[in-house]
Amino acid sequence: MGYQWLIFPIALLFAATAESSHCATDGVPIVRNISAIEEDSYGVPGLSHITIAGSVMHGFKEVEVWLQTIAPGAGTPIHRHSCEEIFVVLKGSGTLNLAYTSHLKYPGTPQEFRIFANSTFHIPVNDVHQVLNTNEHEDMQILVVISRPPVKVYIYDDWFMPHTAAKLKFPFLWDEKCYQELPVKDEL
Amino acid sequence: MGYQWLIFPIALLFAATAESSHCATDGVPIVRNISAIEEDSYGVPGLSHITIAGSVMHGFKEVEVWLQTIAPGAGTPIHRHSCEEIFVVLKGSGTLNLAYTSHLKYPGTPQEFRIFANSTFHIPVNDVHQVLNTNEHEDMQILVVISRPPVKVYIYDDWFMPHTAAKLKFPFLWDEKCYQELPVKDEL
Repeated sequence: MGYQWLIFPIALLFAATAESSHCATDGVPIVRNISAIEEDSYGVPGLSHITIAGSVMHGFKEVEVWLQTIAPGAGTPIHRHSCEEIFVVLKGSGTLNLAYTSHLKYPGTPQEFRIFANSTFHIPVNDVHQVLNTNEHEDMQILVVISRPPVKVYIYDDWFMPHTAAKLKFPFLWDEKCYQELPVKDEL
Repeated sequence: MGYQWLIFPIALLFAATAESSHCATDGVPIVRNISAIEEDSYGVPGLSHITIAGSVMHGFKEVEVWLQTIAPGAGTPIHRHSCEEIFVVLKGSGTLNLAYTSHLKYPGTPQEFRIFANSTFHIPVNDVHQVLNTNEHEDMQILVVISRPPVKVYIYDDWFMPHTAAKLKFPFLWDEKCYQELPVKDEL
């Protein structure tokens, strides 16, 4: 019973270890179990996001890989970013709304694409888009690859908001926690 | 029967369409069915490779995504490349051999890592490695993401071959066909 004073420091030590393993900008283990990586909705209803390989979170510099599960009826905001983005749909189906109009003043009515299990789709750099699970019966699971991490997301209230009025969210939701711990800040 | 002379030109037209859809450096459809993308062993026993999103093949500039199935006992050569590389194991299991010795004269005995379904692993830039399906009962399916495409692969005969003796294979196997059709060659 005389050892009770040890419990608090040991708990602190465990917390620090878990933290450094979550925000491992100085390097991550070569092999990791994806089931053991933090999964969170980051406050977005119907989203489950895992950063499999991240810039802010793990120190990758050129690519980032996410695994996301989107519940029926849920999806991303209308947004754009200046990077290449490639999706692989692992399960389920849904809709991609995409406006090829980064050269105009606002996105305008988007084109709709059906996305489905074992399909791949990509977003041309800076084009405004939204990914939705429009299948009411099934979760949609997608693997997402982006270049130029960490992602700088510009969010639109609707498809007719001017590009210049879209709001920058940086660091993005899943980068916020580890971004605070970065020794040097990334330039926008 | 007077229309038989039409068959050859029509066949040619179809061949040209299939070809341009395989090497679509001027743009690919936004959504594609992965089952309809060309799958090939490129002469490697036990390999099935699909370029889901390619630089030479589809015109992506910053990232490339591959889907590979490796049969029991098969695997990659011992090799290195100067890019980030992230793997997601979708099915099966195997072994990653990795030598963190790009600063020495030759790779030397590699460290062995077990890789398994729902794991992710990465290769530090320029480190020499080999991915093997060492599970004799099951195919291993992996999703591979690289930066700085198209990939420039240096191949080693064994783990004790000097780095300077490793042989450059460029364009790599799955890039060869479309590389010939590129209007401007990529610099090494």
